[in-house]
Amino acid sequence: MSEKLSTQPYKGTRDFYPAEMRLRNWFFGVIRKVLETSAFDEYNGPMLESLDLYAAKSGEEIANEQTYNFTDRGERRLAIRPEMTPTVARMVAGQMGTLNFPLKWFSIPNMYRYERPQRGRLREFWQINVDIFGCDGFEADLECIASAINILRAYGADASMFTVHINNRRFFNDVISAIAGTDAEGSRKVSKVIDKRNKIPRAVYDQELAELGMSEEQIARVDALYHMDVIEATDICPDSVGSQELRQLFDALKKTGMDQYCVFDFGIIRGLDYYTGTVFEVFDNAPENNRAMFGGGRYDNLVGLFVKNAKISGVGYGMGDVTLENFLFTHKLVPETFGSGVKVLVTRFDDVPYEAYLALVDRLRDAGIVASVYLGTKKFGKQIDFAVKDGYSHIVVMGGDEYAGGVVKLKDLGTREERTLSIEDAIALLK
Amino acid sequence: MSEKLSTQPYKGTRDFYPAEMRLRNWFFGVIRKVLETSAFDEYNGPMLESLDLYAAKSGEEIANEQTYNFTDRGERRLAIRPEMTPTVARMVAGQMGTLNFPLKWFSIPNMYRYERPQRGRLREFWQINVDIFGCDGFEADLECIASAINILRAYGADASMFTVHINNRRFFNDVISAIAGTDAEGSRKVSKVIDKRNKIPRAVYDQELAELGMSEEQIARVDALYHMDVIEATDICPDSVGSQELRQLFDALKKTGMDQYCVFDFGIIRGLDYYTGTVFEVFDNAPENNRAMFGGGRYDNLVGLFVKNAKISGVGYGMGDVTLENFLFTHKLVPETFGSGVKVLVTRFDDVPYEAYLALVDRLRDAGIVASVYLGTKKFGKQIDFAVKDGYSHIVVMGGDEYAGGVVKLKDLGTREERTLSIEDAIALLK
Repeated sequence: MSEKLSTQPYKGTRDFYPAEMRLRNWFFGVIRKVLETSAFDEYNGPMLESLDLYAAKSGEEIANEQTYNFTDRGERRLAIRPEMTPTVARMVAGQMGTLNFPLKWFSIPNMYRYERPQRGRLREFWQINVDIFGCDGFEADLECIASAINILRAYGADASMFTVHINNRRFFNDVISAIAGTDAEGSRKVSKVIDKRNKIPRAVYDQELAELGMSEEQIARVDALYHMDVIEATDICPDSVGSQELRQLFDALKKTGMDQYCVFDFGIIRGLDYYTGTVFEVFDNAPENNRAMFGGGRYDNLVGLFVKNAKISGVGYGMGDVTLENFLFTHKLVPETFGSGVKVLVTRFDDVPYEAYLALVDRLRDAGIVASVYLGTKKFGKQIDFAVKDGYSHIVVMGGDEYAGGVVKLKDLGTREERTLSIEDAIALLK
Repeated sequence: MSEKLSTQPYKGTRDFYPAEMRLRNWFFGVIRKVLETSAFDEYNGPMLESLDLYAAKSGEEIANEQTYNFTDRGERRLAIRPEMTPTVARMVAGQMGTLNFPLKWFSIPNMYRYERPQRGRLREFWQINVDIFGCDGFEADLECIASAINILRAYGADASMFTVHINNRRFFNDVISAIAGTDAEGSRKVSKVIDKRNKIPRAVYDQELAELGMSEEQIARVDALYHMDVIEATDICPDSVGSQELRQLFDALKKTGMDQYCVFDFGIIRGLDYYTGTVFEVFDNAPENNRAMFGGGRYDNLVGLFVKNAKISGVGYGMGDVTLENFLFTHKLVPETFGSGVKVLVTRFDDVPYEAYLALVDRLRDAGIVASVYLGTKKFGKQIDFAVKDGYSHIVVMGGDEYAGGVVKLKDLGTREERTLSIEDAIALLK
């Protein structure tokens, strides 16, 4: 091997050295704590799935293009999972007869998408997935949105930093039919144009709607929806199930004080073919970063891909680690240190038996204190340098004299304070 | 989609439903706690790596056969990682100038091997990787072995359940040279035969060694090594560095009381080309399961694959989740429940405003109690059934009367005891 291998990770993926890993463990720990306290159950599935799962949900072309996929020696077409929803739908379908609905499930899987790496988008990422299956009522939508708000609040985020934008796909369909006066097929065509509103030139948008028979006044009424609150908007079609769902949800948000984090936003659609009820996106309010961080909503019948005539509705969201980390750094919500910060290096001298140091370290560890003996035989000054550079908070020094006297020197590397005391007292002080 | 998709996970992979996931989180939590308390730092790397990494370590053929590999659109040959060592070597090499040696690192990555699934071997598995880099002394070997023992002890395993079998590759080479009287090249050839001792018929073994010039008496002396303790064995070549390392290690194991878990075993070799000093394997002592669960040892200069003239030695081991789980189940070391077990379902009636239940659940959660309101509008009996089936320990009942009176009924689903009390008192009791 004269040609040396590259030390770079594969394009679009990351190495997590200990400093970054501590951040991640804190980061995911906060999420786990919030979700577990809210009685969500964690699950996981395999990293490789049949490519057919993604083709059935998103179409053959998207599945092929956006996943890392290949054929195994048994001619099975496999993909590295690019999202968790098909896996969780498969799992729910697989034990549909024995599972105890409604399910409140979450997962924090790593996954891969084959795309050009850019800010907020990498090829390998982790995605927090939260879903409630088998509850059709607004209560599940509320619980789902509340969990997202509670996660962000647990990091210390407040209402000035993020906003949950909420709409409802049933309402969207009904209000468009009401304004355009179209039948189901006509409304579907109009919806497709409205879905593109921010992606195509205004003149094209107007023209396409006009071609579908909409008047200038009707188009203006659709425009007005983007500035309405939930009451005004739902007044246009008060009998729509979607309107009732929206009002119920916003009423409950208000009564629980969560309305401070939420707004009605007619611009939230999130893919025409997938969502069926409540849809929402969580926006970062920072001006330099103002965009949707993640979102979700209610979808029906994913389980139907696996089980004939099955109808289990779900509501959920997926939150990517990269975007969420950007948010936390932007709003300075990442602490400087994680954990208690107490970490003790037992330094080592030649005139004390090594096993005496090992016994000392064992006593510290048994007391739950993070501790290590210095591995090696370098001079005392080098051992201190190692401790400082490695983020140790304290050193315990036991030279020949201390060893003979049954004491240790405990030095706080922050304050540089040093005390000679018994091992018991050192442990008590460190705890 | 009239053809329904399969609900089975891909061959050799597993779905982790909430019950299995709780087991895993407990399982990995024990490992994390032991290693973090011992001041090991966690790291992680990408799931996809360049195939060249594995080819450079294990040869092109093994890398190709045993990994899931494919070529991306940029003609990069990629593999799903089948092990962590090449990744961690790459990471150490990548920041060699700034890292603070010695490093004590661990990781619990998921990985894939392309092999026939069988007991203890799956295609997707997790592997606890523990390594110490940059300390050449026996102290690192000891720390590494101690961490493995401490992990098993933390699960409640004792010396009757597992044994650490230890050898040393330098000693192995030296003692063979001493017995066979061969030069370096001759010893290498003899070693290759001895490495196959349990895999080939005895007659073939004897003949191959005889062909390399060994007498019957010399072969018998090698056989005797398999029954010797460390003192007897190292007395054959007391000046060997390997002998000294072995004695130092066993001396320290004795002085720290860890010798009760350890034996010297000349049969431990672990691949001739990779390990360079201490080697060890941890055996399950259960008669039905008696075999090596995992192992490791000292290896030199993996970092040399990436950086010219770099010499950083390491000592470490990799422990697979499947084998370790088998061990825990065999020895009945898996608890029946995980966590505190307190989990509260707030049941729901129509005559109390929903937001009153949400406020109650919030108070429980804010107190750190795992709690959920029943999602849906089913009858009381169905809500109780749900709670029992889902492992809730308590239900909190707040009907119209309790709501008016500012109290709740708290029912323990285990003892069936029921008390009417204020919300504060209920929280105090649950905590």
